[in-house]
Amino acid sequence: MAHHDLVIVGTGSGNMIVDDRFAGLDVAHVEATRFGGTCLNVGCIPTKMLAYTAEVAETVRAASSLGVDARVERVRWRDIRDRVFARLDPIGDEGRAYRRAHGTVHEGAARFTGPRAMTVDLAGGGTAELTADRIVLAVGGRPVVPPPVADSGVPFDTSDTIMRIDELPEHLAIIGGGYIAAEFAHVFGGLGCRVTIVENAGTLLGGMDESVVERFTEAARERFTVHTGHAVEKVTGAAGDVRLHLDDGTEIRADRLLVAAGRTPNSDRIDAGAGGVDVDDAGRVVVDGFGRTSAEGVWALGDVCTSHPLKHVANHEAEVVGHNLAHPGDLRAVDHDLVPAAVFTTPQIGTVGRTEQQCREEGLSYRVGMTDYADVAYGWAMEDERGFCKVLVAPDGTLLGAHVLGPQASTLVQQLVQAMALGVTAARLAEVQYWIHPALTEVIENALRDAAEED
Amino acid sequence: MAHHDLVIVGTGSGNMIVDDRFAGLDVAHVEATRFGGTCLNVGCIPTKMLAYTAEVAETVRAASSLGVDARVERVRWRDIRDRVFARLDPIGDEGRAYRRAHGTVHEGAARFTGPRAMTVDLAGGGTAELTADRIVLAVGGRPVVPPPVADSGVPFDTSDTIMRIDELPEHLAIIGGGYIAAEFAHVFGGLGCRVTIVENAGTLLGGMDESVVERFTEAARERFTVHTGHAVEKVTGAAGDVRLHLDDGTEIRADRLLVAAGRTPNSDRIDAGAGGVDVDDAGRVVVDGFGRTSAEGVWALGDVCTSHPLKHVANHEAEVVGHNLAHPGDLRAVDHDLVPAAVFTTPQIGTVGRTEQQCREEGLSYRVGMTDYADVAYGWAMEDERGFCKVLVAPDGTLLGAHVLGPQASTLVQQLVQAMALGVTAARLAEVQYWIHPALTEVIENALRDAAEED
Repeated sequence: MAHHDLVIVGTGSGNMIVDDRFAGLDVAHVEATRFGGTCLNVGCIPTKMLAYTAEVAETVRAASSLGVDARVERVRWRDIRDRVFARLDPIGDEGRAYRRAHGTVHEGAARFTGPRAMTVDLAGGGTAELTADRIVLAVGGRPVVPPPVADSGVPFDTSDTIMRIDELPEHLAIIGGGYIAAEFAHVFGGLGCRVTIVENAGTLLGGMDESVVERFTEAARERFTVHTGHAVEKVTGAAGDVRLHLDDGTEIRADRLLVAAGRTPNSDRIDAGAGGVDVDDAGRVVVDGFGRTSAEGVWALGDVCTSHPLKHVANHEAEVVGHNLAHPGDLRAVDHDLVPAAVFTTPQIGTVGRTEQQCREEGLSYRVGMTDYADVAYGWAMEDERGFCKVLVAPDGTLLGAHVLGPQASTLVQQLVQAMALGVTAARLAEVQYWIHPALTEVIENALRDAAEED
Repeated sequence: MAHHDLVIVGTGSGNMIVDDRFAGLDVAHVEATRFGGTCLNVGCIPTKMLAYTAEVAETVRAASSLGVDARVERVRWRDIRDRVFARLDPIGDEGRAYRRAHGTVHEGAARFTGPRAMTVDLAGGGTAELTADRIVLAVGGRPVVPPPVADSGVPFDTSDTIMRIDELPEHLAIIGGGYIAAEFAHVFGGLGCRVTIVENAGTLLGGMDESVVERFTEAARERFTVHTGHAVEKVTGAAGDVRLHLDDGTEIRADRLLVAAGRTPNSDRIDAGAGGVDVDDAGRVVVDGFGRTSAEGVWALGDVCTSHPLKHVANHEAEVVGHNLAHPGDLRAVDHDLVPAAVFTTPQIGTVGRTEQQCREEGLSYRVGMTDYADVAYGWAMEDERGFCKVLVAPDGTLLGAHVLGPQASTLVQQLVQAMALGVTAARLAEVQYWIHPALTEVIENALRDAAEED
């Protein structure tokens, strides 16, 4: 039985906590899979590296519409994959080596055996029993696998595995219509695979602003085969020949199946109850505004507890929890206001604040400012016919939300995140600065002016 | 002799002035060339449309470094050119038709014959004599042609003509190293021409921040043949076989010559003196803070008078002058603070505020925050090895300047323009908002944090 001053369970954002502030303490890190967590290994970063590569392939294919006849001659998938992971894997490895050199690392899955007591099923065999003065739960989440797939016995991939496959499938079927499904459809579609998406709901990216949903779904239907409004009832077949049977009788045959039907917190894997750690109905570890769980001395951060399963949120929570551990007398609160997000697809999406339907549902008064890329000069340069910037403006002129769809959306929206965080009105924002002409940012300027003009 | 209440000379930003506020007045517009001015016809917009097309061609060529083997099979120059001008020419034509339907249009070059009296050498022959209560000079500028070229009798292009040529040259020689030269080098290099740049100074883009200059010049030397530090002494040859003789004995043979050695205001073409309009040593019409020239009732805006020959500045000046004409008792001042600019090349450049060398020359205390694209995840996705964001921060934490080089620079820098306009400190800017991970904007976040860390 080892006793540590501090145990961090999970090395994604969890690995950001321990620094010089904790020198002199006996610290242990616990990791069940790869050091570095979801973002580095199976999430944000590798997907974005692949998404950008797919975007480039799409750019090649679309070039002739600009007068540049171009062709993709070969997609070297293994080279792409290896380029990505040859860069990323060493980062996790270095993190692991560093923690081993500067403290204890328990490699295996940890679960509570009592208050601040855990057992780790070591990856190398055996178990480690440990107790700690303080424990941080940063064990993240994992893909949900719906019963028709899980029960079928048919091989499938999730975001955990699909990026490390050896060969591109000819036809990839994707179950799910959220941002993960959308990004992988973009990645594999861009790299030349035929892609079929099956989504229960009537559209893709449900929950995003309705204009984004409408135009994105429309774009996806042009690029991929998209089945919406129907569920997968049964999965049959075998590796290389997967068959999805939908509830309307449709049968889809593909040579690979990706399940991207949402994620669930890993709270069910840590025997939270034994540690006195409350978990809510959605499976999230319950935390207060400072990152404290219901168990004395046990903190949590990231996907295991947050309602915003995004890396920038987990990093913020790690910063707050780290501060709070180091300064017990000066607790900081987590800030979940104005959390932006992006979807790295073609078209790309950047979003912050309320959607228009949320404004309506909340009964808010609001004005809409909307400008298409096709209405600004840089959009002409791009021959973009789909992109837009939409801002939702309160009667006092401040922004309620902003949504951008099109090239550079993840970059463009940040300026509006900044404006919202600073509480600047749309009209002032439009007027206070010179907007470079003819840069793509004019789509923001004009959306802001459009909202102001409704006055 | 026609008398008008208001005469606008030049229909670039000048065409933005007259609206409902001037209903009931007798208004005339005068245009010596094409309606719409430099930006629409021979400047910002067509160059950006071509620059983006060239960027796409460059993306195709670079794709194999990402694992996507791709090839440019053919550049259909005439289709590219016609796509651009088929979109832009009608805009100028519609502007002309609108003004003819709603007032008087004099087509020809105007010059003063006395106070608020002008004669127009009509394009169709003959002259029009006119007087006006108020005159706005918005006659713009034109390319400078250095004597060795002008005197040679050898055919050459400028930005006025190069975009409408019929065939791409095999080898384009460019005299000049400023942003216009850089953009055309990018355009024609990207579209497959061999490009040679000859610049008197030791680097390209002199006057921009020294880090931008260094990395841009380095990038240009990889893409093009670049002769710096030597002047063209003599030009010989003929159409299709132009020879530039440099002062170090070098001879450059090219099949086309583009002169992009700066621009000069058109003040010398309007007989300003006869109108009582003062012109400074740089050839700019002298205006006060409200846009008034030295001649009673004569105003000016844009490249003919401004020290910032940029469309977004001319538009602002047109807005101010328009307001001041409509509200003589409530004059607004022109704001030339924080004028950003972008250069649409590969790499792209976005810039605002002071350069580092200006900070030094002014004896300012400042800190530098700098982050390479290669140090953020989206830069990894792009495999970018050259881009950076640099911020210059005053002791009070506010930004003195910001400079971005790399993909999306013209978009990225706008967020820093906004921050400077709002007077937010670098540290607050970094902390006040969630930065989407892993978007390219992290290069801004990290530069801001880098500047803060020097404390």
